[in-house]
Parts: sequence; structure tokens; C-alpha cells
Amino acid sequence: MLLFVCRETKVKLTSNDSSNGVIQKLIESDEEEEGVNQLEMSIKCAEIQHAISVGELPFLLLVNFTGATSFLYTEYKYLGIFMGVFAAIIFLFLGSVRGFSTKSEPCAYNQGNTCKPALANALFSTVAFLLGALTSVLSGFLGMKIATYANARTTLGARKGIGKAFITAFRAGAVMGFLLAANGLLVLFVSINLFKLYYGDDWEGLYESITGYGLGGSSMALFGRVGGGIYTKAADVGADLVGKVEQNIPEDDPRNPAVIADNVGDNVGDIAGMGSDLFGSYAESSCAALFVASISSFGVRHEFTAMSYPLLISSMGIVVCLITTLFATDLFEIKNVSEIEPSLKRQLLISTVLMTAGIAVVSFFALPSEFTLFNFGTEKAVKNWHLFFCVATGLWAGLVIGYITEYYTSNAYSPVQDVADACRTGAATNVIFGLALGYKSVIIPIFAIAIAIYVSFRLAAMYGIAVAALGMLSTIATSLAIDAYGPISDNAGGIAEMAGMSHKIRERTDALDAAGNTTAAIGKGFAIGSAALVSLALFGAYVSRAGINSVNVLTPKAFIGLIVGAMLPYWFSAMTMKSVGTAALKMVEEVRRQFKTIPGLMEGRTKPDYANCVKISTDASLREMIPPGALVMLTPLIVGTLFGVETLAGVLAGSLVSGVQVAISASNTGGAWDNAKKYIEAGVGEHAKSLGPKGSECHKAAVIGDTIGDPLKDTSGPSLNILIKLMAVESLVFAPFFAAHGGLLFKFI
Amino acid sequence: MLLFVCRETKVKLTSNDSSNGVIQKLIESDEEEEGVNQLEMSIKCAEIQHAISVGELPFLLLVNFTGATSFLYTEYKYLGIFMGVFAAIIFLFLGSVRGFSTKSEPCAYNQGNTCKPALANALFSTVAFLLGALTSVLSGFLGMKIATYANARTTLGARKGIGKAFITAFRAGAVMGFLLAANGLLVLFVSINLFKLYYGDDWEGLYESITGYGLGGSSMALFGRVGGGIYTKAADVGADLVGKVEQNIPEDDPRNPAVIADNVGDNVGDIAGMGSDLFGSYAESSCAALFVASISSFGVRHEFTAMSYPLLISSMGIVVCLITTLFATDLFEIKNVSEIEPSLKRQLLISTVLMTAGIAVVSFFALPSEFTLFNFGTEKAVKNWHLFFCVATGLWAGLVIGYITEYYTSNAYSPVQDVADACRTGAATNVIFGLALGYKSVIIPIFAIAIAIYVSFRLAAMYGIAVAALGMLSTIATSLAIDAYGPISDNAGGIAEMAGMSHKIRERTDALDAAGNTTAAIGKGFAIGSAALVSLALFGAYVSRAGINSVNVLTPKAFIGLIVGAMLPYWFSAMTMKSVGTAALKMVEEVRRQFKTIPGLMEGRTKPDYANCVKISTDASLREMIPPGALVMLTPLIVGTLFGVETLAGVLAGSLVSGVQVAISASNTGGAWDNAKKYIEAGVGEHAKSLGPKGSECHKAAVIGDTIGDPLKDTSGPSLNILIKLMAVESLVFAPFFAAHGGLLFKFI
Repeated sequence: MLLFVCRETKVKLTSNDSSNGVIQKLIESDEEEEGVNQLEMSIKCAEIQHAISVGELPFLLLVNFTGATSFLYTEYKYLGIFMGVFAAIIFLFLGSVRGFSTKSEPCAYNQGNTCKPALANALFSTVAFLLGALTSVLSGFLGMKIATYANARTTLGARKGIGKAFITAFRAGAVMGFLLAANGLLVLFVSINLFKLYYGDDWEGLYESITGYGLGGSSMALFGRVGGGIYTKAADVGADLVGKVEQNIPEDDPRNPAVIADNVGDNVGDIAGMGSDLFGSYAESSCAALFVASISSFGVRHEFTAMSYPLLISSMGIVVCLITTLFATDLFEIKNVSEIEPSLKRQLLISTVLMTAGIAVVSFFALPSEFTLFNFGTEKAVKNWHLFFCVATGLWAGLVIGYITEYYTSNAYSPVQDVADACRTGAATNVIFGLALGYKSVIIPIFAIAIAIYVSFRLAAMYGIAVAALGMLSTIATSLAIDAYGPISDNAGGIAEMAGMSHKIRERTDALDAAGNTTAAIGKGFAIGSAALVSLALFGAYVSRAGINSVNVLTPKAFIGLIVGAMLPYWFSAMTMKSVGTAALKMVEEVRRQFKTIPGLMEGRTKPDYANCVKISTDASLREMIPPGALVMLTPLIVGTLFGVETLAGVLAGSLVSGVQVAISASNTGGAWDNAKKYIEAGVGEHAKSLGPKGSECHKAAVIGDTIGDPLKDTSGPSLNILIKLMAVESLVFAPFFAAHGGLLFKFI
Repeated sequence: MLLFVCRETKVKLTSNDSSNGVIQKLIESDEEEEGVNQLEMSIKCAEIQHAISVGELPFLLLVNFTGATSFLYTEYKYLGIFMGVFAAIIFLFLGSVRGFSTKSEPCAYNQGNTCKPALANALFSTVAFLLGALTSVLSGFLGMKIATYANARTTLGARKGIGKAFITAFRAGAVMGFLLAANGLLVLFVSINLFKLYYGDDWEGLYESITGYGLGGSSMALFGRVGGGIYTKAADVGADLVGKVEQNIPEDDPRNPAVIADNVGDNVGDIAGMGSDLFGSYAESSCAALFVASISSFGVRHEFTAMSYPLLISSMGIVVCLITTLFATDLFEIKNVSEIEPSLKRQLLISTVLMTAGIAVVSFFALPSEFTLFNFGTEKAVKNWHLFFCVATGLWAGLVIGYITEYYTSNAYSPVQDVADACRTGAATNVIFGLALGYKSVIIPIFAIAIAIYVSFRLAAMYGIAVAALGMLSTIATSLAIDAYGPISDNAGGIAEMAGMSHKIRERTDALDAAGNTTAAIGKGFAIGSAALVSLALFGAYVSRAGINSVNVLTPKAFIGLIVGAMLPYWFSAMTMKSVGTAALKMVEEVRRQFKTIPGLMEGRTKPDYANCVKISTDASLREMIPPGALVMLTPLIVGTLFGVETLAGVLAGSLVSGVQVAISASNTGGAWDNAKKYIEAGVGEHAKSLGPKGSECHKAAVIGDTIGDPLKDTSGPSLNILIKLMAVESLVFAPFFAAHGGLLFKFI
């Protein structure tokens, strides 16, 4: 029995395929524009949505088809095993710091007091790790559920006009954003309070253990991003190469065997992956801030309100984003395609302005007017307005990064138009210009990050960096809303195409999607920018916890760490790019095979074997996520154990400064190619018309660029944030072990 | 009147176009294989060679055609202005350190003694800068002259068999290699002895001033690499895109209007650029080593032989390379295409093995058995066999880098074959696989560099790094020989094509060229690897001279330097890639225009307007080399003056660790694409045959990859070595100024 409830603004749609076979429909609509059979169309929408969400395609009689949910279940099964093994590693490594002794120890920072045994910290770190991992999985899963429900509704909304479709897609994104932000905050807050029952006055141990939460969240995010990224791009590249380039059929055409895999991929990669990535950033920056605070005056003097400053900032962020959302959905109405992007951009600005006031309120009420912060062995005197500036700098740096990303990836400006123009001379110049654009787009974001780092570092040492990261992430709900909006619109277009809706509807969803590409790039920009700050904060926390007071580049141990660390993003990207390439090759061969061997497929008389393509993507992503995952998870363990804390510090610094650049350039290059193609396809304006139409030589060159950009912008680029954050948080969690037993190799030489 | 002397093994060729119009020819040959008209062929060769070398194409009646020499003259005119301005800046900045005082000062390191005034150091630094610049210009110019003379001779050699052609091309490369190595060494040695006449016992000031030599060499190399790189790739990309892709005519076909510009470009970019780049590395590492030695026990105790250890290592290198060359030209003979690459690879191995013995000899005879080295404020006790290990580690790390580069860029191994295989599914997968290959190829070279750094740093601090760099560069003559061999063979093929020689000859030069692509990649690998060591050595010298004892990443000043420094290679690459793209677009339009508007061009009845294409390349390269040049030259000045020595140290470390990765991956990706294309074209073996032949869909996809790779491997990638070295040596030269007056911005805040 199937029961779908397609709810969308003023459209109610129920498809009840009960045992007696009766299908009930109810459509309330005041201004339907299309003359096609409403009932049939709505059934199709509901069915396709269901196929994508639970893995069945009743109208194709393909039962047991593996969809997004079923992919995630399989992925989670593997991740469950990983979580168990890694939890054991954490417990064993941290437990061995004091030889599994159950005796209380003198505190490391809060001198004169007694702290809980290292074994307790090991146990609670393990528990926090599991909690973080579960919350991350839950965030990704719920986000994906929301998105799949919103897909078909957006398509139906598009029948009533661009405004309705926009609101549906945007609201779904917002629901997801609020859910993730609130979920992460809630679990963290509850965990702290529960842990406190055991730890009591030992805040040092309490917040040391809580860092496991960040590690758990981030390690799940890694597999989500990498696995999801490979899944979605293998399908996308495969579908495009044969469907669009060789067979000249439109994107998302139901005759393309890889089309369902492509749609499933958008949800598991762009939505679930992005959700767990930003959740990870959020959890990690909170943990880094809390840890540094716990060994500063807040922790030593047990001021719980001041201690909770990072959490209060995030809570204020949720309130601010709630107000901001009203501006997009209730206070203004979108009537025109050209209003979509400005409206989304306005969201960023409004949330930033409001949040600045919010930060001021929290800073003045939650913090004492003067206090001291731990600064690598010394104490730094800080005032409450210093922290206001730290958080605000992070917040505004995020806005700058968002706007710059938009400038380089939106086809409303000259950079993308130049790339489109380069298609005149073929794919090669398109690629050369696209790569150059990506490199160039790094400049201003790095300056923005550098300024944020300098200001917050100077004002409040590493704590300043951590709260600056939280400032950038405080508008996470809005960022996620405008980010998730992209893939939702993309899939809405896919559903319109598959359900055979009119050209007009497809045009509307395409317009939403073009804006969505830009906002997706903005979201990635935010994710990368915050990752840079977060991992620096984690780096600082790691260094503090490992008991190092300086990381001197002029020592061989630190320098080789730095240069090898700077290499890791390349190694990691090589793995993920090659994985996508290999999986895409297999997909291409399968799609070609189906077009060749299934008679009547091109004419639309028979249906392709969607399930096989889904299987290829699923298998590839599960198999291929292991090597890059192992690289990230094992590097800190191996370096810390064999080479010691200084070399590991070098590795973290190197991978941070190098990874940020690779990530930004890869994701912007990909976004620019995608929108250059869309620019030619849309053909708005003299210039764009001279390059098009679809199918022209220029357009073909643009499609090649778009295909190359797919793994860059959706797999290797965004996975790099997680690389840099995860290595840092893992080092932080294992720091006591490395400090006690690390550097074996140098000890023997 | 024209007089050419085409000398080639056992082939003497004289074309004397005197006023009475008599053309004399003399060809001695014992085994001519071709039945075509010998006389006519030889005239054509001589004429084409002349066109490329001096800028006239008499047989096309195109007088005043701008060739390689004339391009270099124009370039040098601009560089002359730059040199004058920059020399003035050096003098003013360094002179102002002690307010242009002419009084002697107490020495900074050799305490208790009196040193020459800062004004004298300013003056001699300026002179050294000019000497370095002139030597670099001379090296590039002579290298190019040799190469252009060798082009036509190699073509003629190819008529007698692959072995003769190989020997001609290789010997020309060797002549160039020896010339550069000897030239650099000679000027440096003479300068030191001349400067000593003034400085006397003040070795601190003497070797401080000598660092200007490195700066001069490197700044000319920058413009040579960037300008030459843009020139050659604009022409190459333009010629390929229209000629090969659109018009389906062979490479180097005389009907292609950009063909002469392409050939000129090979000489000015690959030969002159590479020559001045390696000369720069060599000059800089010598200067870094000499500077550190001067403030160590050698300098303090005035031990001139020990002091000259870096120069002795280089001298020994020349002797070793001389012996090595005999193995390629006299002891073994190439009879078969398949023997070319192994023979070149053997050169690397032989020179490395022999040099290891050479280093041992120099280390035991030139050095005292024990001495102390300056190590950031402390003295480090070192034994002579420590230095042997430092130099040897660098040398062998270079061999590893060379071999790994060969593995990733030669089509004899699976990486390039996989890339070629990815062409089956089109250009997009080709590009994805190629990028992944480039990223992957970074891993082992970075480990090799890291090990070399660790060993030499541990054994002999920064002096160890400097001599390790010299170790890697000690076989520079062999590296240059096998590197220059590539473009010489490439142009020989071009001349064969243009002179209308038989298919057989072209096949032979193509075989030489394919091996040349790999050796060019190896040469670039060496250049990048040595650049990493050199700039680290310069970085150490800079830090010593600026009086910093630690560069702590955990300070905001250093960290923002690090992250911004890591961004600079991207900014720089964006500029150079875009420059090539823009210039190539113009070239494409011009070539298309000529094919459209010149009647009878495609049929070979009329000649194209070569001069216009040459002008486009010349103008583009001169105009476009200014912004990237300014970025590199101004960054250290601005950062040092405004932000101070710590931030500048961060910038240097960041650009070093990030730039190396970008440079290696860019140059290997480009090399791999080029050889993947050649693999398909050659069609040797089942696999390659299944992808080809020329003109197939696979081959077209491969050509697109090759075109994208052109600016990566010949412009942006190799220019990055210079970026990292040049910023470091410039910082070293200006260090006294920054230490005295730098950091204005932070002083005001």
C-alpha cells in the first residue's frame, strides 16, 4: 500500500493506492495554468517522488528499486561498523594515556584541584563520539527526507507560477536548516548536562570529553560527503555524457537509464552530505570554543553562563534566521525569475545585519565585562566587547565570502560570461578559463579569512578564532535554507521532465535551478570558510591540549609536517576525482549498453533498466569512499604516533592553508562551468544568444566543462573542508595520547 | 646576404645566397635513405632554420619577420627598463637601512670586528643584482641560439636514422647545459673575488651583497618563463585549435598561419625560459649557502676553501656530467626508437651515481673534519661527512623526483595509458583523469623532498638545506641536456613538416619528440624539486638575516602570512592561465580569419600571413607578463614594509608549501595529456590501436586535453618555481631594510 501526502502551498494532493485499487485525488487550486490532465500529472509526481524517496517505481513496475533512503541505509550499515571500530580505538588510545588507571589525577590547568581519571575521559570521549556520529547521521537523514518530500511539491508549485515554486523549495530548505541547527545544539546541550552529573566540578575533563562529539559528527560527515559525492556525480556525469552529448536527449529525460540514479544522488550528495558537513563544522567549533574556555577563567571559576557563550550565540542565530526567513516567504513575494537571486542574496545580508545585533546582546548579557583566556601557556586579559568583535568579524567575513562566491559563479556577472564566451573556441579554452576563474576566486575569500583570523586572534587568542567560526556559522539555518533550495529545485525540474509536463514548467524549474547553482556555490563557500576557521580553532585547542607552546616552522619536524600536510589535499582529491571518473566510466558503458541493446528505448516505447544504474552508483560510492576515508582518519594517528606532536601540528597547519585554496577553487570552478552552460542554454541577452542555442558547438563545449566541474564542485572540493576539520578534531581528541606516547620513530633514531 | 652553416654529424650544409644568386651546397653523407632532391631539401632546412632564428623567411619573401631572436631583443628592452628601476629600488631601500651613512659598523655576527657601511652593501648588492640579471639573460639567449642552430641539423640527422638525430639533438642540449652551468659558476666566482678586493676581511658584508646575484638571476628568469610561456602557448593552443581540430591538417603544417609562431615559441619558452630558471635556482642556492656559511665558522675563521664548498660541488658536477654525456653519445648507440627513453633515463642514473662519489671527494678534501654552522642564533657542531649526506640526499631526492615524474608522464606506463583510455568516453573524463593523475603525482616527490629536508636540516641546519639543493642541481648540465633535447626535437619535426620531407622523417622526429615530452616533464620536476629546497634555504637565510629565531605559526602575524602565502600560487596561476587563454583566443580568431579570407590557403597554393600571428604572440606575452611579474616582485616589498618580518616569513613558508604542489601537479597533468595524445597517435600495441587512429573521437578528446595542458605545463606550472624562489631571495636581499623599518601597519595599529 502506498500513501503519499504531497503538501504544497494551496495544493493538496493525496494518492492512496489501497488494496482495492482505488486512487483518490484532491486538488485545490485557484490559478492552474496548464491544460494537461491534472489527475494523471499529480499521480505521476507522487509516484516519482516516492520512487526517489523510498526506492520503488510503481509506475514502472520496478519493485525493490534502490532509492535514496535505501542507499543511506546501506551506507549507514557500513558506517555503523566503522563507528564501532573507531570508538574502540578512541577508548583504547585514550585509556592507555595513564595505563588504564582508575585513580583521580591532579588537574593539568586548574592547578591544585583533582580531576577525574584519564580512563573516565576515554570512556566519555567515546560516548561523545558516538553521540556526535548519531546526531550527524540523523541530521543528514532527516534533511534528505525533507528534501525528497519537497521535490514533487515544488514541481506542482511551478505549475502555478515561479513565486509558488520558489516559496515551496525555499521553505523546505529552511525547515531543514532549522532542524539541523536546533538538533545539533540540543544534543550538545543535553550531553554537557548529563556528563556534568558525573564530572561535577571537573570541567577540564568534561569539556575534554565533549570534543569527541565534534569528532563523531565530522567523521560521519566525511563519509556522507565523499560517499554521497561519488554517488551523485558518477550518476550525473554518466547520464550527461551519453544522454546529453551522444544521444542529444534533454537532461532528466526518462529515456535515460541513469536519470533516477542522478536524482537520488542529488539528495544523498548535495542535501545529506551538505547537512552533515555544516553540522560537523558547527559541532566542532562549539567543542573547540568550549575546550579553550574550560581551561580559561570561565572554566576555572565555574561560570556556567559565560561558559555557554558559544551555545548562546548559536541559539541567537536560530532566532535571527527565523525572522530572516519571513523576509523571503511572507514580507516580499517573488513574481519574476530575475528576483530569485537577489532575494536569496538579501537573505544573507538581512541575517548578517540582524545577527550583529544579536551577538551584541548575547555578549553584553552572558559575559562578565572582563576575564582571562588561555593563550598557549599564558593568560590573556579580554573584555566582553572583544568577543563581540571576534564573533562579528567571523560573521561578516562569511558574508563577504558568500558574496564573492556569488560573483564568481553566477552568470549575471562577467567572470562566468567570459567563461561562456571562451566556449566559442571550444572545450579547451572553456576549461582553461574556468580553471583560471577558480584560482582567481580564492583571493578575496582568503583575505577575508585572514582578516577575521588576525582580528579575533589578536583580541582573544584561539578562543577568538573559535567564536569567529561560530559567528560565521551562526546563520547556518539561512545558509542551509538557500543551499538546500538548489538541489530541491534541480530535482523538481527532473520530476517535471519525467512526468512529461509542459515546457513552461520545466523552464520555471530551470530558472530556480540556475539560482540554485549559485546558492549551492555560496553554501559551499560558507562551508569552506567556516571550515578554515574551525580547523584553526581546533588546531589551537589541539596545541593547547598537547602542551606545545609554539609551532616553529624553522624546525625540521614542523616543516616536513607542513609540506606533507599541504600535499594531503592533493592526494585526497586525486582519490575522489579518480573514483568519480572510474564510476562514471562504468555508468557510461551501462547507459550506452542499454541504449544499444534495449529496443525502442530511444523512441520511448520501452523503459530503461534504472535499477542497474542505481546499483552501479551505490556500489561505487560504498567501495570508493574507503581509501580517502582511511587517508583522513589514519593520517593523524600515524603521524602523531610515529612522528609526534610537533610534526602533527605542522601537518594540520599545512593541510589547512593548502586545503582551503584547493577547496574554494574547485568548487567555484565547477559552479562557474555549470552556470556558463546554463547561461548559453537560457539564451537571455544578445551575447548569450550568439553562443547558443542548445546543441550548438559552443553549447557542447560548455557541457564538457560542466561535466568536468561536477566532481570538482560536488565531490573533491567540498570533501576537503571535512579533511581539514576532521584531521584537526581527531588530533585534538587523541592529543593526550600523542603527548604521552607519540613520536616513536624519532625516539628510536 | 645570408650565410648558414648547418653542421651536423657527418653532414655539412652550406647555403650561400650571395648577390649573384649562386647557391652552393655541399652534402657529405654516407648513408642517405631518402630519394628526394637533396639540394632543395637542404636549402629549405637552412632557410627555415634562419627564419626561426633571425626573423626572416626568405623563401616566403617575408622580410622583417619577427623570430625568436627579435622577440628576445624586444623582451630584453623592457627587462632593461625593469632592471634599471629595480636596481634603484634595491640601492635606495638598502641604503636607507642606516640612513645612507658611510661610516663603518660593528659586525652583526662576527662580533668584535668592524664591517663595511650598509651603504656599501647597498651598492654592491645592486651591482650583484645587475650581474645576476645579465648572466641570466645571456644564459637564456645563448641557450636559445644553440637550440635554433640545432633544430634544422636534427631534421637533417633524422634523414640518416633515428640514432643520428638523437645524438644531434642531445649534443645540442648538452652544449647548452654545460654553457649555463659553467657560465653561472664563472661569473659568481669572479664576482666574489672582485668584491673581495673592496671587502677584504668583511666576509659578512661580502656574501650579504652577493645574494643580489641570485635575485638578479631569478627576476630575469621570472620574466623569461612567464613571457616565454605565454608566447609559446598562445601560439601552440591557437595553432592546434584551428589547424588540428577544425581544419584537420597535421601539426606544424606550413598552411597553418600560427606555425612559425609556435616554433619560435618552443625556443623562447622551453629553452630560454628553462635555461634561465635553472640558472636562477643554481645562483640562488649558491648564494643561500654562501650567506649562511659566511656567518658560520668558515666565514668567521676565513677559511676560503671551505667557504667555497658550494662552488666546488657545482664544479665537480660539471666534470661528472661531462663523463655522463659520453655514455649517451659515444659509449652506446641508439638504433631503435624504444631505446631513446631508457637512454635518457640512464643519463640521470649514471650522473647521480658518479656524482655521489664526486661529493664524497669534495667533502673530504675541501672541508675541515669538524666545524660549526649558524643555526638561528645558536651554533651547531657539524662534521664533514654530515655535509656529504646533505648533498647526497638532495642529489638522490632529485633522481627519485625525476623517475616518478617519468612514471606519471611517460606513455610507457599505466597512468598515462589510463588517461588515454578515459578518452573513450570523451574529453570530460580525459580531463578528470588527467587532473587526478596530476594530483596523485605530487605524493612521492613531496615525500622525497620532505626526507631530504629532514635529513639535511637535522644534520646541518639551513646550510644543509642549501647544499642539498646544490646537490640536486649539481647534475644541472645533464638535466638541461635531456630537457632541452625535447623542444629541439619538437622543432626538428616542425621543420621536417614545413620543408615537406617524407613521412618517415616526421615519424622519427615524432618518436624523439615523445621521449622529449617526458624528459621535459622530468626537467620540470627537477626544477620544481630544487626550487622547493632552494627557497627553503633562502627562507632560512632570510630569517637569519632578519634576526628572527623562530617563526611560530601560533601567532596571528605568522599565520595570516601562511594562509595568504599559500594563496599566492593560485592568484599567480589565475593570471598566467588567463593570459594564455586570452592570447590564444586572439590567435584562434586570426588563424580562422586567414583560413577564411586567404583564397587557396587550404590547398597550399598561397602562403599564410605568419607575421601577424607572431605579432599577436609577441604583443600578448610582453603585455601579459607585467601583472604576474608585479605580483611576485611587489609582494615581499609590500608585506615586509607594511606587515613586518614575521608575516613575510609566513608568506614565504605558505607560498613554498602550496606552490610546490600546484607546480608539480600542473606540469605533470599537462605532460600526461600530451603523451596520452601521442600514445593514441602512435598506435603501438592493441590498446593504443583500439583508441586511435588520428582523427577518431578518442583522439579528438585527447587533443582537447593536450590543449588544456599546454598552459598548465609550460606557463603556469613552471613559473611557480620562480614565484617561490624569487619571493624568498628578494626577502633575503631586503631583509636588513625590513628588520630596520618594516611592519609599519602594525606599528600604527
